[in-house]
Amino acid sequence: MGETVGAIGEGEILRRILARLPRSAAPVGPGDDAAVIAAPDGRVVATTDTLVHGPDFRLAWSSPFELGWKAAAVNLADVAAMGARPTALLVALALPDATPAAFVDGLADGLAAACAELAPGCAVEGGDLTVSDTLTIAVTALGSLDGRDPVRRSGARPGDEVRLIGDLGVAARGLAVLFDRFTGPTGEPLPVTAAALEALPPHEAHAVARQLAPCPPITAGVTAAMAGATAMMDVSDGLALDATRLAQASGVTVELDSTTLGADATAALTGGEDHALLVTARPGAMSLGRRIGVVGERGAAPLTVDGVEYGRRGGWDPYRDWDAGRG
Amino acid sequence: MGETVGAIGEGEILRRILARLPRSAAPVGPGDDAAVIAAPDGRVVATTDTLVHGPDFRLAWSSPFELGWKAAAVNLADVAAMGARPTALLVALALPDATPAAFVDGLADGLAAACAELAPGCAVEGGDLTVSDTLTIAVTALGSLDGRDPVRRSGARPGDEVRLIGDLGVAARGLAVLFDRFTGPTGEPLPVTAAALEALPPHEAHAVARQLAPCPPITAGVTAAMAGATAMMDVSDGLALDATRLAQASGVTVELDSTTLGADATAALTGGEDHALLVTARPGAMSLGRRIGVVGERGAAPLTVDGVEYGRRGGWDPYRDWDAGRG
Repeated sequence: MGETVGAIGEGEILRRILARLPRSAAPVGPGDDAAVIAAPDGRVVATTDTLVHGPDFRLAWSSPFELGWKAAAVNLADVAAMGARPTALLVALALPDATPAAFVDGLADGLAAACAELAPGCAVEGGDLTVSDTLTIAVTALGSLDGRDPVRRSGARPGDEVRLIGDLGVAARGLAVLFDRFTGPTGEPLPVTAAALEALPPHEAHAVARQLAPCPPITAGVTAAMAGATAMMDVSDGLALDATRLAQASGVTVELDSTTLGADATAALTGGEDHALLVTARPGAMSLGRRIGVVGERGAAPLTVDGVEYGRRGGWDPYRDWDAGRG
Repeated sequence: MGETVGAIGEGEILRRILARLPRSAAPVGPGDDAAVIAAPDGRVVATTDTLVHGPDFRLAWSSPFELGWKAAAVNLADVAAMGARPTALLVALALPDATPAAFVDGLADGLAAACAELAPGCAVEGGDLTVSDTLTIAVTALGSLDGRDPVRRSGARPGDEVRLIGDLGVAARGLAVLFDRFTGPTGEPLPVTAAALEALPPHEAHAVARQLAPCPPITAGVTAAMAGATAMMDVSDGLALDATRLAQASGVTVELDSTTLGADATAALTGGEDHALLVTARPGAMSLGRRIGVVGERGAAPLTVDGVEYGRRGGWDPYRDWDAGRG
């Protein structure tokens, strides 16, 4: 890990990153003042999400590859949740001087792998490189609706069924395992080595892997849109909070059935960071994912579970919930 | 300045920001998983640039309004430099808990004002809000070429004239004034008050204002493209370095005439952050800006001034040049 980014400088870091990314397929890729990306139907879907060292990750837990993967995946999920096909990422890195150059290599590999595996045809087409005391990865994702209407949060209608595509509560269980088993006596995060992962029960190792490198169902976003999804959103803050948001935007009540939520319904309702897709559709229109409830007329509460108002929320407010730890 | 962002939380900060931004004109504006922006000719221009507390600004020198303005302006300039019309900004803010809520209000006002004044029709259409030890403003700008070809760095041809639209060396002079006159005995930045600015010689006050809130010639990017610009780029790292980049990309030599560069040619050649547009065009094709040289066949050096190879570069490598100061 000898060289640091402070020693090799901006130009050389950029060359190393670009050398690890697949060749651009855009009209104008990296290297000019801006990229030019195809937007075939005359609209572009655009979203941005940032990973910050401290509130969003621990360097002892996440490998550079996992951080690149996660930064891509969480943004791709927001594009998918509109029913769109991701077309390009822009990646703004703010790196401390002492960051190993090898860290940047791993990050680039993770970005490229997430695009290739989760959203084939999407690539890093631009970015920015600067220095900071706090390692920060700000990604913007672009996408194409290919002529379809965007699937918004506000389209759910009474009588729709509620479906869930992806994991529920797995990433949160992984985070709990990290805090339980990879935290030292003074609260410091301990390295997640391959050997340590192998020593875990398989479901715990799986949960840790999903926490560190989530696999949202990106291509399912387009499939759901084509199958007639009436509303859709990325479940990043936990099902209870995000289903409430969808219900509020649509002016309906989302009525969930706890028997569809797995062995630990509370974990499924409150655990965040899985980046599953929450979808509503006319009954029988869609076979994707699993049915977890129905949409009702707006009642006293926007969210019920087994017919009862659900009060717990989960979710994560960065200002309220970050304990200022890093590691 | 009572309330902090840590006290009011993510939802309330977002509401305050959105309340200060003009109403969205996009197909889908803020509030869903992603925005949907018009890209009328089937392509979108996209760029990202980040301002980081420490290397990029001092809170004693820049007001929140100026930071919002500058974060928008430097990104709008990259869109303009492709010959495009800015259509939307996405703004990712990473704020320390202790940031005053009023700071966020000022930042939002500065973003909105820069769009309204520099790029009418462009607005903040999305973003992200998180916590960080280091105040970081990552902006992505999108734009439309409206059917024209992008103006790249690589299109300059021997015989073209070289033109410059905007300031040269003014922002760097402003930074020098800040270091000279607004730095305390132990190197700490001192507040730039209205009274202190009024006490400066007018050209120094002007330079400081341009450093803190640059006014790049955004609409001139489209005008230059329509007038037949063969190459164009944003001069952010100083004319010498950026002209060298344009010359290298085009495989030519840029031959500058120092008599066109003002009283202090060295400052004009090495001072960064003005975000002027460097343009090449067939002789007589363009009246915008001023003629500062010609494009020659590629000679021994990519850049000459008065016929002699120019060795100084200026520019700013964040890893090499940041002294770790903040304030």
